[in-house]
Amino acid sequence: MIYIGIDLGGTNIAAGAVSEEGRILAQASVPTGAQRPWREVIRDMAEVSLKAVEASGHSLDDVASVGVGVPGYADPDTGVVVFCTNLGWHDVPLREELEGCLHKPVYADNDANVAGFAEARAGVSRGTHSSVFLTLGTGVGGCFIIDGKIWYGAHKVAGEMGHVIYNFDGEPCTCGATGCFERYASATALIRIGKEALARHPDSVLAAKKETLTARDVVDAARTGDAAACEAFDAYTTHLANGISSFINVVDPEIFVLGGGVSKAGAFLLDPVRRKVEESRFYKTLPFPRIELSELGNDAGIIGAALLGTV
Amino acid sequence: MIYIGIDLGGTNIAAGAVSEEGRILAQASVPTGAQRPWREVIRDMAEVSLKAVEASGHSLDDVASVGVGVPGYADPDTGVVVFCTNLGWHDVPLREELEGCLHKPVYADNDANVAGFAEARAGVSRGTHSSVFLTLGTGVGGCFIIDGKIWYGAHKVAGEMGHVIYNFDGEPCTCGATGCFERYASATALIRIGKEALARHPDSVLAAKKETLTARDVVDAARTGDAAACEAFDAYTTHLANGISSFINVVDPEIFVLGGGVSKAGAFLLDPVRRKVEESRFYKTLPFPRIELSELGNDAGIIGAALLGTV
Repeated sequence: MIYIGIDLGGTNIAAGAVSEEGRILAQASVPTGAQRPWREVIRDMAEVSLKAVEASGHSLDDVASVGVGVPGYADPDTGVVVFCTNLGWHDVPLREELEGCLHKPVYADNDANVAGFAEARAGVSRGTHSSVFLTLGTGVGGCFIIDGKIWYGAHKVAGEMGHVIYNFDGEPCTCGATGCFERYASATALIRIGKEALARHPDSVLAAKKETLTARDVVDAARTGDAAACEAFDAYTTHLANGISSFINVVDPEIFVLGGGVSKAGAFLLDPVRRKVEESRFYKTLPFPRIELSELGNDAGIIGAALLGTV
Repeated sequence: MIYIGIDLGGTNIAAGAVSEEGRILAQASVPTGAQRPWREVIRDMAEVSLKAVEASGHSLDDVASVGVGVPGYADPDTGVVVFCTNLGWHDVPLREELEGCLHKPVYADNDANVAGFAEARAGVSRGTHSSVFLTLGTGVGGCFIIDGKIWYGAHKVAGEMGHVIYNFDGEPCTCGATGCFERYASATALIRIGKEALARHPDSVLAAKKETLTARDVVDAARTGDAAACEAFDAYTTHLANGISSFINVVDPEIFVLGGGVSKAGAFLLDPVRRKVEESRFYKTLPFPRIELSELGNDAGIIGAALLGTV
């Protein structure tokens, strides 16, 4: 049997036909057209899924189940998308509607949960007893996995590591709280910190890109030794390491997996973060979690969604 | 069979003979004499245990095992007390030594783990699937429990909720880090915040106790409407609620249990904390954990230690 995994994004819907081991056999995508009624978007999710299955040389008869990763809150028990701000969805019965189109069991979950699950089943944290996945993108998504299963918590609201309060009187967060971890450890945070450093070093190479500055610009400039960028990236890796040390103090997983845009900085990110976690953790002489980069990258969305049906 | 539970404190050693259901049948205590060599302290632990067993009308033949709660880090697998600053202990082979005295299996664990475990087995969180225990004392201890078992983490360093970073550029912590949660949510923190409020309200009733101010003084004065104490207690409950909301975002337990000195404030603490967690949590429209006061109070140390042998 094969599994359909759908990565529902604000811009594109990507669907893949995935093997039981988590290998993408074929994929297809289509623009989301998020402004349309949700029924039309879900109909396109079904169509693009069929295209991916066909491209893999299989038919719908070979498909065991369909999983969807949603950039919002999907109830894993009911398959209802409770909120999805990017798409303007509220209480959308995704499972019911997509099962009506494809006549297969449908699973839905938050996109960070899905990506962390993919890594734990088919990526860098495969075979571990426990892992925490952090996606460093526009915000910071998280996922805590025990024995290959997502830890949803008692009310299915666990894994929002981005909204742990890290600086209670600090930066206002889009969630309404103040000082959330994602205000210090997301790609968005790296841009803000970069702009603050630029104000102190107006001769930085970042000055030319000030209005359109990206997290990647800051990373690239830091690699060349630009003072503002180095200062910003150093502050950023300190915040990320502090957060990881905090999460060790709560759940102490076997491994942390870093995904999302900022993780593309590779060893340039990983080396200082590992060093700073080693320095900042509470029990300085005891062993502590490995910290690794995600292995599946953008494919984690499709793979994790597909594998939701294998639990 | 009965179980011996020992609460090893910096001042006293309290031992209890405990039933399988977690009821203390009899207890005895002796001063710790922490300045003595550890062998002498452990010999006294054995003697006071025998007294408690005798007082319960049982003999050592009725004892299944012995558990010890330690105000420091005890490795639950080896029974070695790795650090215990209060007693000046470092790598003390507690299990080996106490087994040599009592000829029964010995279990050792951190005192906050033991108290949280007691509540989950015989107290307010009994029968829950998951719980987080927070002890609000000199510091903030923590414990995360799943299915009636302490979640130690992959490296046995989980449950240090007091050292989650809550204000990264804030108050220096005794652990060497900055802005740890316990600097804002412990009894010690309530005293500091009370003194800060007193500086803004010099006519407060707290002024008379300035040098010897306790957390209880601040709570008592807040109950009478004293402006400085009310301001301090309001800030304190906000910090505690923010921390609880953060821990919901990571693990979302079925219930939080508040123990330690500050929890003696009862409903005066619980009411604002519940209200503020409801207001500050991330998913405002979804269900969230119950928050309750510990039920076993000071007995949790003996009961939880005794029940370590029943897992």
